[in-house]
Amino acid sequence: MTTPLRIGIAGLGTVGASLARLLQTKTDSITRRAGRPIELVAVSARAKTKNRGFDASGLAWYDDPSALAREAEIDGFVELIGGSEGAALECVRAALERGVPVVTANKALLAHHGVELARLAAENGTELLYEAAVAGGIPIIKTMREGLSGNEVSRVYGILNGTCNYMLTRMEREGLSFDLCLKDAQDLGYAEADPTFDIGGFDAAHKLGILTSLAFGTEIDADSIYVEGIEAVTAEDIAAAGELGYSIKLLAVAQRTDTGIEQRVHPALIPAAAAMAQVSGVTNAVAVDTDLLGSIMLAGPGAGGDATASAVLSDIMDIATGVVLPTLGIPADKLQPYVRARMRAHEGGYYIRLSVHDQVGAFASIATRMAENGISLESIVQRRRARAGDKANAQVILVTHETTENAVREALRAISDDGHLGGQPQMLRIERLD
Amino acid sequence: MTTPLRIGIAGLGTVGASLARLLQTKTDSITRRAGRPIELVAVSARAKTKNRGFDASGLAWYDDPSALAREAEIDGFVELIGGSEGAALECVRAALERGVPVVTANKALLAHHGVELARLAAENGTELLYEAAVAGGIPIIKTMREGLSGNEVSRVYGILNGTCNYMLTRMEREGLSFDLCLKDAQDLGYAEADPTFDIGGFDAAHKLGILTSLAFGTEIDADSIYVEGIEAVTAEDIAAAGELGYSIKLLAVAQRTDTGIEQRVHPALIPAAAAMAQVSGVTNAVAVDTDLLGSIMLAGPGAGGDATASAVLSDIMDIATGVVLPTLGIPADKLQPYVRARMRAHEGGYYIRLSVHDQVGAFASIATRMAENGISLESIVQRRRARAGDKANAQVILVTHETTENAVREALRAISDDGHLGGQPQMLRIERLD
Repeated sequence: MTTPLRIGIAGLGTVGASLARLLQTKTDSITRRAGRPIELVAVSARAKTKNRGFDASGLAWYDDPSALAREAEIDGFVELIGGSEGAALECVRAALERGVPVVTANKALLAHHGVELARLAAENGTELLYEAAVAGGIPIIKTMREGLSGNEVSRVYGILNGTCNYMLTRMEREGLSFDLCLKDAQDLGYAEADPTFDIGGFDAAHKLGILTSLAFGTEIDADSIYVEGIEAVTAEDIAAAGELGYSIKLLAVAQRTDTGIEQRVHPALIPAAAAMAQVSGVTNAVAVDTDLLGSIMLAGPGAGGDATASAVLSDIMDIATGVVLPTLGIPADKLQPYVRARMRAHEGGYYIRLSVHDQVGAFASIATRMAENGISLESIVQRRRARAGDKANAQVILVTHETTENAVREALRAISDDGHLGGQPQMLRIERLD
Repeated sequence: MTTPLRIGIAGLGTVGASLARLLQTKTDSITRRAGRPIELVAVSARAKTKNRGFDASGLAWYDDPSALAREAEIDGFVELIGGSEGAALECVRAALERGVPVVTANKALLAHHGVELARLAAENGTELLYEAAVAGGIPIIKTMREGLSGNEVSRVYGILNGTCNYMLTRMEREGLSFDLCLKDAQDLGYAEADPTFDIGGFDAAHKLGILTSLAFGTEIDADSIYVEGIEAVTAEDIAAAGELGYSIKLLAVAQRTDTGIEQRVHPALIPAAAAMAQVSGVTNAVAVDTDLLGSIMLAGPGAGGDATASAVLSDIMDIATGVVLPTLGIPADKLQPYVRARMRAHEGGYYIRLSVHDQVGAFASIATRMAENGISLESIVQRRRARAGDKANAQVILVTHETTENAVREALRAISDDGHLGGQPQMLRIERLD
């Protein structure tokens, strides 16, 4: 196999330019590992004149990415435009319809059109690869598609958003406020000017939707994911959790339950002594619980031009070997419809922080309402008052034993109705990692 | 592709029996993932009559594993006999010579004959797979052979022996002695009656030899590995390291240096806040530092029948897809000879524990000898005396800044010659993880 694999790239942003540079500079080691040369032959981007650090002189240039996908003489098409609709979707469809293998880093595209594109790839005897779409440089897609074969997955979960993890890490280690950490994240380029997509949990949800499909053989249904961002997490919660032996992370979790598959993204308390609690800064991590392997965890850089380009490159090298695997691990026509578990039925422990007016009355109310809803408490801590003697600002922190989300919400509603609370109760889920 | 892939297994111990059960019970999910049925057709083991929890009735039975490899009508041969020579080596050679793909969990075989077998596989247009040989159920071989393509590795390191990690974890968490933890490990079946192979670091060295080859494209040279076991680590070292913010782990490290590739297995201090420091009990972990990806880490079960069988099964499923990759990541004829770095040149920080007779004289000697060898100290702690007023039993603990192994050994020799030490100095390397 010494015929070169000819590659076209649509989208020359940070990742695209980094990939083009790698393909032009690492030719020896790429050829040795891939068993044949990999040659960049065509590109498409908006601005043709811009210097992107690679030699564009010998390459076919297309203004229209779909034209590249339809017309260029290529053996692999790389989509790095981004966005779930429009140009990205069109050019990926065009390449697959022509039977050309596609590599993409586009999680939104996969989350919204993954099943359709998996079918299209199968119909045309080609494949769609997307290692870079989830957890950047961590080879979690390869691991789940190929490495866990034969295992039944019971849960997949992880830290899938670097921006949130960076902020929570700084809040934990330096006791800083949410707003200050967000500003720093924006200054460092880890967060967008409008950070909603990251800190609201939506980016993590897109990635989780893909992992859920791989884990359970179901169709991707990212719209059914329960999503809660980190906006309501305070430095006080992080400190209180720390005293109780927990760390707070934005977790994305997909889990098989009796009523269906639970997909949820939310801040969660995890044991501070767990390896995942040490995953700090913009690093991502994914853990998979299975019947045969027990639990495995992968951690590494979740983003960055070179790390993402490296993941794209490993997909391209898989194309070079000539093997064609089903996009979502099993044949597209064997994927089961996704059956959503009711979030209200979620079972687990809870961390609850309440601002109370009147301590004695509040404690009685808390104890009664919890008992009425069958909730037993692991610990009750009164943390501090803002000013001595100011009863309106006492903070009561509860950690429950295993219970249901429904029971906790009912109890909190009743405590609130009793009139002892000085603000909205804070409720965070505790994730068991064992 | 609905033709079944026919498999023969040689060796029906824990892993072999577990694999046979999986192949007979998980047929639906295996077929769905592999794209074709995988059928166990032949087995070989010493005792034919033993009940191993699977149905042996329809299977061809061979007393001689090499006869199975040579004669059975199979599309894949699984070697689970163990040992680097004899039956295991013979039957693997026989299968490869016939062009039949081989899967093995045998680290000793790979460590000693990996390059020869890689060449034999290439010559016969077939392949040798060994995911289960390193770190049990963690897909590190797949990750290094396929997922890191395009990356230059600067270091690969990890916790590769579950027995040692189990013992060190208990010593750390419960303050127990080495001997007590070893006895418990033996009672639980984590350690052999003769535990030398595990606690002496030799098992980890076999695995490291394989990882080194994959990381650096060099021939396997497990005999050149510097190996130091955990026998000399005391509960006192672990406690002192903990106070200084470190955890002690048996690390296996391969690292590119100016003079060659350093391969070493030894107890090392790592920052207690690192994710790898939280890898506890029999869990294994491997981290890879690369130019593009930065650092990624994989953690999971290092042993166990089902976990190992699962890794073997994922290799079998790779055979089912029909792709043939070079055994050691790059073609066998492109592997470079291994060039060993001199361990004396190892650079890093050191933890040193000295038992001193006379404090004042000892301190002066330590300071002078360290300075003479260009070693600067990060911290000096006098930990305790066994009995108040008994100067002969003062313990002095030093942490050095970055220096060379040679300098430290010279300084310790000189301090010892000065006559202030009440016993052998303890010297442990500090591994930088950033």
